[in-house]
Amino acid sequence: MTGSNALIADKLKFNENGLIPAIAQQHDSGEVLMMAWMNRDAVLETLETGRVCYFSRSRGKLWRKGESSGQVQKLVDFRYDCDMDTILVEVDQIGVACHTGRRNCFYFAARDGKEVVISEPEVSAEELYGKK
Amino acid sequence: MTGSNALIADKLKFNENGLIPAIAQQHDSGEVLMMAWMNRDAVLETLETGRVCYFSRSRGKLWRKGESSGQVQKLVDFRYDCDMDTILVEVDQIGVACHTGRRNCFYFAARDGKEVVISEPEVSAEELYGKK
Repeated sequence: MTGSNALIADKLKFNENGLIPAIAQQHDSGEVLMMAWMNRDAVLETLETGRVCYFSRSRGKLWRKGESSGQVQKLVDFRYDCDMDTILVEVDQIGVACHTGRRNCFYFAARDGKEVVISEPEVSAEELYGKK
Repeated sequence: MTGSNALIADKLKFNENGLIPAIAQQHDSGEVLMMAWMNRDAVLETLETGRVCYFSRSRGKLWRKGESSGQVQKLVDFRYDCDMDTILVEVDQIGVACHTGRRNCFYFAARDGKEVVISEPEVSAEELYGKK
């Protein structure tokens, strides 16, 4: 299978830093969980393992989602867009996607010119990262 | 309202090119329609007019979604993430989001190492762009 996943990776357009944005959506509820970046290795690892892997720009290395928190994303479907420069991964998110303990990262809303927090953490950072 | 929308725009983290990725999601069905980029002016115009405006990287100018095709996106909710570096616009998409005439741009799937087209155009490019 490696060969053909490599052909998929060859089609994708990575930016000047070798990265492509990847949106994660909970496959059944439609909730948009987060957006992060993948490099070619992350794309291949995601396709080959069925567990979503990103590239951490701050740490400069592969970021196997859930590696330290246990909040893994199981791949349900790997999609990409008309321009082949954005990925949409349909996932089954175990636990929460956001490092703040919220189910998804998009918890700020701009309403009437004000910032509103529209969801609260379901677990604490301590629970997520306290015990490795 | 301009003043406070400017404060929202001040919070967002634009990249080295002055851009921030913006995911558009159909507000009621949860369908992820597309991903594009906004600059500060596009953010302000979106918040102030209630019609989604992006920044076209290829044309180097504001891209009022639907300007030439009529397929506008009415803003329902403007959200952003924990890192304040990604926008999620909940929209009401008139017609189709994709320039190919498909409802959404994510019509390629990688399945068993093969590329599969998972949706078909609902309208032709001619219908979309033929008569301005």
